[in-house]
Amino acid sequence: MASDLLAVEEARARIIAVLTPTAAETVALAEGAGRVLARGVTARLTQPPADVSAMDGYAVRAGDAVDGATLRVTGAAPAGRPFAGVVGAGEAVRIFTGGFVPDGADAILLQEDATATGDTVRVNEAVAPRRHIRRRGLDFTEGAEVLAAGRKLTARDIGLAAASNNPWLAVHRRPRVGILATGDEIALPGDPIPPGGIVSSNAHALAALVRGAGGDPVVLPIAPDDTAAIAEVAASAHAFDLLVTTGGASVGDHDLVQQALGGEGFELGFWKIAMRPGKPLIWGRLGRTPVLGLPGNPVSAIVCGVVFLIPAIARLSGLPGAPPPTRRVLSAVALPQNDRRADHLRATLAVDDQGRMVATPAAVQDSSMLATLARADALVLRAPFAPALPAGAEVEAIMLAELGV
Amino acid sequence: MASDLLAVEEARARIIAVLTPTAAETVALAEGAGRVLARGVTARLTQPPADVSAMDGYAVRAGDAVDGATLRVTGAAPAGRPFAGVVGAGEAVRIFTGGFVPDGADAILLQEDATATGDTVRVNEAVAPRRHIRRRGLDFTEGAEVLAAGRKLTARDIGLAAASNNPWLAVHRRPRVGILATGDEIALPGDPIPPGGIVSSNAHALAALVRGAGGDPVVLPIAPDDTAAIAEVAASAHAFDLLVTTGGASVGDHDLVQQALGGEGFELGFWKIAMRPGKPLIWGRLGRTPVLGLPGNPVSAIVCGVVFLIPAIARLSGLPGAPPPTRRVLSAVALPQNDRRADHLRATLAVDDQGRMVATPAAVQDSSMLATLARADALVLRAPFAPALPAGAEVEAIMLAELGV
Repeated sequence: MASDLLAVEEARARIIAVLTPTAAETVALAEGAGRVLARGVTARLTQPPADVSAMDGYAVRAGDAVDGATLRVTGAAPAGRPFAGVVGAGEAVRIFTGGFVPDGADAILLQEDATATGDTVRVNEAVAPRRHIRRRGLDFTEGAEVLAAGRKLTARDIGLAAASNNPWLAVHRRPRVGILATGDEIALPGDPIPPGGIVSSNAHALAALVRGAGGDPVVLPIAPDDTAAIAEVAASAHAFDLLVTTGGASVGDHDLVQQALGGEGFELGFWKIAMRPGKPLIWGRLGRTPVLGLPGNPVSAIVCGVVFLIPAIARLSGLPGAPPPTRRVLSAVALPQNDRRADHLRATLAVDDQGRMVATPAAVQDSSMLATLARADALVLRAPFAPALPAGAEVEAIMLAELGV
Repeated sequence: MASDLLAVEEARARIIAVLTPTAAETVALAEGAGRVLARGVTARLTQPPADVSAMDGYAVRAGDAVDGATLRVTGAAPAGRPFAGVVGAGEAVRIFTGGFVPDGADAILLQEDATATGDTVRVNEAVAPRRHIRRRGLDFTEGAEVLAAGRKLTARDIGLAAASNNPWLAVHRRPRVGILATGDEIALPGDPIPPGGIVSSNAHALAALVRGAGGDPVVLPIAPDDTAAIAEVAASAHAFDLLVTTGGASVGDHDLVQQALGGEGFELGFWKIAMRPGKPLIWGRLGRTPVLGLPGNPVSAIVCGVVFLIPAIARLSGLPGAPPPTRRVLSAVALPQNDRRADHLRATLAVDDQGRMVATPAAVQDSSMLATLARADALVLRAPFAPALPAGAEVEAIMLAELGV
């Protein structure tokens, strides 16, 4: 029955709807890259601060600098050292890129159009007024907002904040995300593995995903399948902006996370999502802390991390929490009609001889195959009940590397 | 004259050719994301370690589990707790996803195809042998290389390294990159600005670019235009895998970096690159440390950072040092024939009503306009002498956000 399944978009929208951005903190400009501005950045100066030369040459009066004229060089205006005088009739001032155009001058004679001899310079090509002059404020003016609140800062933005004389930035705090793996059968890498057990991979993969998404991950000790142990960890949930659990969310006899959290002010949302891989998802609240319970299966946990956790961290960071961006690519193979669950096909990408991006889904899409996920470049999206497509058809795909996953 | 200009590709190839990857270090698995493997990662166990169930249900003998049969449930095999006995004739063992298939069983009766009553279970749909069983080693087998040397590790790779029981990773050290801004006229943000001076933006923008590219940036104090001051800083260059300078690389009277470094075992390469923005580039060596001198103009410095510095850091990190990846987009406007310099048009991106990515270059491409660069999403590439193109034509573009710039 499709009716008992929740659509991916609906689940994501419900998660995003209840999350609010973290409060602001002050960070040094140098620490701002990748952070989200909590307040806009205003220029504290005008750039350029005066009309400046865009080239190396001579500041002149356009009326004087006719072809063949000889001008007297009365000084120099390198960048950072303005010429204090005035350019008079028949005069020129040596100028360099970024140098302030001296009073009296209204044009730049390019170095390559001039012949310097002693303290005179010959004009080999007439100049045009205002040409090669950058007007005061061409880049930005004092008081103007150069970067808006809500923007995720790039390296270029750091340059712009610096150039506009802002040593400090107000950004949203990195969301602190607790990560709790549960299960008697799991052991940390290098630790003794219980009989029949497996090595825990979700917590550290999710921690890397959280860090890549701009969060601050805290990996909690593994909690055994024991309500008291899980409840003990959960009691520290107030320290986090989001608590992520993995495991314990399936419908079997061994699901303890829900019971364990029942006594801790847990508002339970247990969802079956119309997606593959991944289906069971817990979404609730421990006191004030939102809790996202991901499947224990590593492939499902990472795909749900891409689909739900990255947007959640974005939202907590002060961004809208948009769905993961997709890109149109061609499918190398025919795709069958899809069933009711949105599929996320692990696929490799290549560029064909016409420069088009082509995705080849792995032949076996078993959700236990972590190596296949690691080798994938993209998740090809197949909507519920999507019709069959021939090889070469366009499909939407999530680019994993672009997400830092 | 085109002959005195060096092509972008040639300059990049010369830079990459002399760089060698940093040595290896051991890092904890949890610190491995984004690092480049110096040694391959080998699986230390087989996953799954035995045949396991892919579903919740009952482990049965396929020959017994015909439609309507009733089987006796003799035990349970949850994940992590193998059933020690054997499934005999007419018997079933309750099993959960990931549970080891007990000896004697060769098929899984799905929970939804069964009716449990006391210690018996009724088969409502006949099973197929081997169906819903994941074979031992389906994901990976002990001794197999699951991640190859030279790979930049994703969050998924961290999961795979964990699942294959590797608590430690051998990765290339993050290249340590010294960043030296030079110039009498520049001041750090918030510091007093000398008359006619500007606020230094290159060092911190480049530091963010370096960090985003996987390097470890060290911002050096600003060196005034004074050979002794620059030489003093340069004397510490041995601490870096790469020294990046900005400013002092133009052809004017005020270029001191070259002279200053002359006495320090500097092998000079002073290049004029056939590109815009950016043209002058220093490439050399101070003792054993490679030196990349970028233009002082902030837009030129960042574009040269994308074109030359990111590939250089990639190479030092153990990657090939490939050119920045490009993507085909449509130009929203007609583009004129290009001159001899490869152009990097600052452009915004939008998706048209047919889902195609369209780039709109900024109307004014002045290299002094840092705000325009910050607002850009992409650099549209125009090769030297590229022919004029009509609006709607395909062009190659570097996606800045994807590079973390």
